[in-house]
Amino acid sequence: MTAQPMSAVTASGWQAPRPAAERNYPMNCWWVAAFADEVTQALLGRWICDTPVLLYRKEDGTAVAMEDRCPHRSAPLHLGCRRGDNVECGYHGFTFAPDGACVRVPSMKAPPAALWIRTFPVVEDHPFLWVYLGDPAKIDDVPPPHRLEWATDPSFAIEYGRIDINANYMLLKENVLDLTHFGFVHAKSFKITDWVDPPRLTGAGEVCGYHQSFSASPLPSIFAEPLGVPPGTPYDRENYGSFVTPALQIGAVDLIEPGKKEVTGRFRISHATTPIDGRSMHYFWVGGRDYGTSRDEMAAFRAITEIGFAEDETMIEAVQAMQDRDPRPTEQLEKSVKADGPGVQARRIVQRWMDRETA
Amino acid sequence: MTAQPMSAVTASGWQAPRPAAERNYPMNCWWVAAFADEVTQALLGRWICDTPVLLYRKEDGTAVAMEDRCPHRSAPLHLGCRRGDNVECGYHGFTFAPDGACVRVPSMKAPPAALWIRTFPVVEDHPFLWVYLGDPAKIDDVPPPHRLEWATDPSFAIEYGRIDINANYMLLKENVLDLTHFGFVHAKSFKITDWVDPPRLTGAGEVCGYHQSFSASPLPSIFAEPLGVPPGTPYDRENYGSFVTPALQIGAVDLIEPGKKEVTGRFRISHATTPIDGRSMHYFWVGGRDYGTSRDEMAAFRAITEIGFAEDETMIEAVQAMQDRDPRPTEQLEKSVKADGPGVQARRIVQRWMDRETA
Amino acid sequence: MTAQPMSAVTASGWQAPRPAAERNYPMNCWWVAAFADEVTQALLGRWICDTPVLLYRKEDGTAVAMEDRCPHRSAPLHLGCRRGDNVECGYHGFTFAPDGACVRVPSMKAPPAALWIRTFPVVEDHPFLWVYLGDPAKIDDVPPPHRLEWATDPSFAIEYGRIDINANYMLLKENVLDLTHFGFVHAKSFKITDWVDPPRLTGAGEVCGYHQSFSASPLPSIFAEPLGVPPGTPYDRENYGSFVTPALQIGAVDLIEPGKKEVTGRFRISHATTPIDGRSMHYFWVGGRDYGTSRDEMAAFRAITEIGFAEDETMIEAVQAMQDRDPRPTEQLEKSVKADGPGVQARRIVQRWMDRETA
Repeated sequence: MTAQPMSAVTASGWQAPRPAAERNYPMNCWWVAAFADEVTQALLGRWICDTPVLLYRKEDGTAVAMEDRCPHRSAPLHLGCRRGDNVECGYHGFTFAPDGACVRVPSMKAPPAALWIRTFPVVEDHPFLWVYLGDPAKIDDVPPPHRLEWATDPSFAIEYGRIDINANYMLLKENVLDLTHFGFVHAKSFKITDWVDPPRLTGAGEVCGYHQSFSASPLPSIFAEPLGVPPGTPYDRENYGSFVTPALQIGAVDLIEPGKKEVTGRFRISHATTPIDGRSMHYFWVGGRDYGTSRDEMAAFRAITEIGFAEDETMIEAVQAMQDRDPRPTEQLEKSVKADGPGVQARRIVQRWMDRETA
Repeated sequence: MTAQPMSAVTASGWQAPRPAAERNYPMNCWWVAAFADEVTQALLGRWICDTPVLLYRKEDGTAVAMEDRCPHRSAPLHLGCRRGDNVECGYHGFTFAPDGACVRVPSMKAPPAALWIRTFPVVEDHPFLWVYLGDPAKIDDVPPPHRLEWATDPSFAIEYGRIDINANYMLLKENVLDLTHFGFVHAKSFKITDWVDPPRLTGAGEVCGYHQSFSASPLPSIFAEPLGVPPGTPYDRENYGSFVTPALQIGAVDLIEPGKKEVTGRFRISHATTPIDGRSMHYFWVGGRDYGTSRDEMAAFRAITEIGFAEDETMIEAVQAMQDRDPRPTEQLEKSVKADGPGVQARRIVQRWMDRETA
Repeated sequence: MTAQPMSAVTASGWQAPRPAAERNYPMNCWWVAAFADEVTQALLGRWICDTPVLLYRKEDGTAVAMEDRCPHRSAPLHLGCRRGDNVECGYHGFTFAPDGACVRVPSMKAPPAALWIRTFPVVEDHPFLWVYLGDPAKIDDVPPPHRLEWATDPSFAIEYGRIDINANYMLLKENVLDLTHFGFVHAKSFKITDWVDPPRLTGAGEVCGYHQSFSASPLPSIFAEPLGVPPGTPYDRENYGSFVTPALQIGAVDLIEPGKKEVTGRFRISHATTPIDGRSMHYFWVGGRDYGTSRDEMAAFRAITEIGFAEDETMIEAVQAMQDRDPRPTEQLEKSVKADGPGVQARRIVQRWMDRETA
């Protein structure tokens, strides 16, 4: 896990692409730009927080993130091509080095010094590639990318996937902070129907979460089968999750044979939500467990997860469409209940991130 | 024809979803929400006057209209399911009774009293289901839904259909108030080419209309064939229609054998136009007659009507698209002639409905 | 090349459809409306500079341009039909003569004198049909349509085509004023890779352009093949082009056998760009040469040109999409280099056209 140094040329005069009042996502935050294996020596263009971002790897494998907009005439650089470690614009051939310096203007002997492109610090940490798009002067003030320890734990097997969702990123965040939706949205897929009580609100400061304990409760088949016990077997479960940063939500289920102390099985899930803009997001999910880790069992896990998360996508896109179409302001209409505690808390935390950005 | 009582919980603090200055359709008006037979025990979501409306029937067959937006987290309720007479939201299972009361929040022992959803009065009157979305305090001040007497007259046969049109609802209203368009828009379908003179402007107060008499005039085949006389036979015709409310326009043709006094055949048509928003409408047409009422003859009537009304749809969508795309304001460009009298009068009446709403 | 007289009825009270501050295209300018052979006795509707324009030919073959919006109820006239030299609206049959006079309202004995439609002066000059949509009082102050002399020169063969591009028209203008893009956008199609030096900026006043001389330089195959010499043969080339008006850009390559004085081959190209609105344009290209003029050789020229210009289309649509999506204002981001001289000059000239319009 290594962070690239920022290009010196980008260190002054930073400004957010969109005023803070028009968004609910902080720029001064590490966001997941991509799964690391999405980024290759080919040029990949992706919008993140209203910013066009170009992602690629140098010949030594190091990942590079730079603005995906040529400073000359606004062509998307990903339409150009990689030349060694540099990127050549497909319009007039202006070429930029991984540190953002313009190294070639074909019609000039030497490129003007004023010509450079913004590059962004990245952190590669399996399975994510994180990017920082915010104010370079504030990078040390924000929490570094959160590590998924279990993602590199050899006793775990993991699966992951990306869904681009036409909804504000907080709608996914609130979705995974209120698991009472499982009994309805996922009644036919995950079939976990006992997440009905409002969980305990946990956390303090900039982290919030939930915790819910199940004692000798019938084990849903999605947990039972890979564990090798019959569905419905009485089992203890500790179910907890946290809003870590606006970029990442983590969740866990510890499965414990009643009467025993050791955890029999660990299930982990993380939801990285990266705003494309205020109306859409990249959703990167990662799930893993230390039981039922065979290839076939994990393929089954992946399949059911894709079905279930598509159900979430349908629902939150419908919510976003409703908010967009109804002329009335959403904030005047919504009524919260106790189960919304973690979600409401998450909104407040995000608001504090925004406040710090404009302070 | 029975109106449901309004849910008490909705009786205070009413506000239009969109300010009156931004629309030309009154909220304090009964609108056709659907043909009654479109509404079943399945959940039907439909936008009416910028309002998401859920329509369904209780187990006793009574129709219910409620807001199609869960007050909890804005999910469209029609994505959920009916539980007996109640509706369960598909997101977190919040359940609402037909009177708007929240009767279940799965994560709570008892739902908070502050949780309720707006319901709307409905009137079922063949073939329409009418809904009132406006200020509950003003419902007694507006005219009740207009009855189509002939729609339930056993000597009549009727056909009806719905077209969703991408145009402001007044464009359809003006279309049917100026029948001189028949010779052009419908020259190849209805083939009624003698509606060329500007008709007499009729009506007073909140109703306006036209009346046109034809004496021993060649009968167009669309009237002649079901009447069993050769097309072109000299026949008297009384052709009249009215703007009844912003929601409904009615039209009639009485066919009279020259020299006789009794009406030989009665043709009736009604055009209910329900704004979806300012740029689109649900158009519910109903046509009937007391001659040529056999199944085959009515099927032929339906077929030609669908062709003709699709011609209107094409034309008024083109007009709306023109108004949307041309940067110049339409009201400064339009020039009216005598045949526009009823349409211009209808605009004034609608303006008075709007004025009353903001008074 | 004959200009039609303007209809007297349009000579007063002219106003641009969109305020000058919201556009970068002058209304007081001759624009290419169509290739002359696109305009037939059928009705053709086309948006030009935010104006709906109807184009057709009278029975004597004369082209007519009139507003494509009926002054009665805003129907697009091209949905109606031609009646002799007149146009009948498809909605209510209002009929307009080629001079804009309303000659028939079907429901009236005589149409009101106040009913007329705007017509536009046109100039037909192979292969273009030009139109003037601006202030009638200013028509004599603007340069008349530029003639492509070579387009009617019998020693030349020409090809032409139209592409509708989703980009502001100036993006195409700047594209053809900076030929250094050939080495990148067209590296695989035109394969002219030696247009890399910034050319000399030419012109003065309202015309600007570039000029570039190649002396005994290897001839690219696109020039060599139709000339009948081996690709790579050392050859002199004079490469020059001009921004003539906001509507037209012309370019030329003179091919000269080294040591000789006469031009061996003349290649000519013109780029007429007509704004549809601020975000899209009709692009009319015409290319010709006085060598390699056989049918097969010109078909090959047309084929490669269509491939190459589709490459430009892709690139400038990507640039427009970038400008539209990025919340930051483009004018604050773009950095120019010497090769942008002609393009920057063209922007200034356009600005002067705009200034004159609002003076």
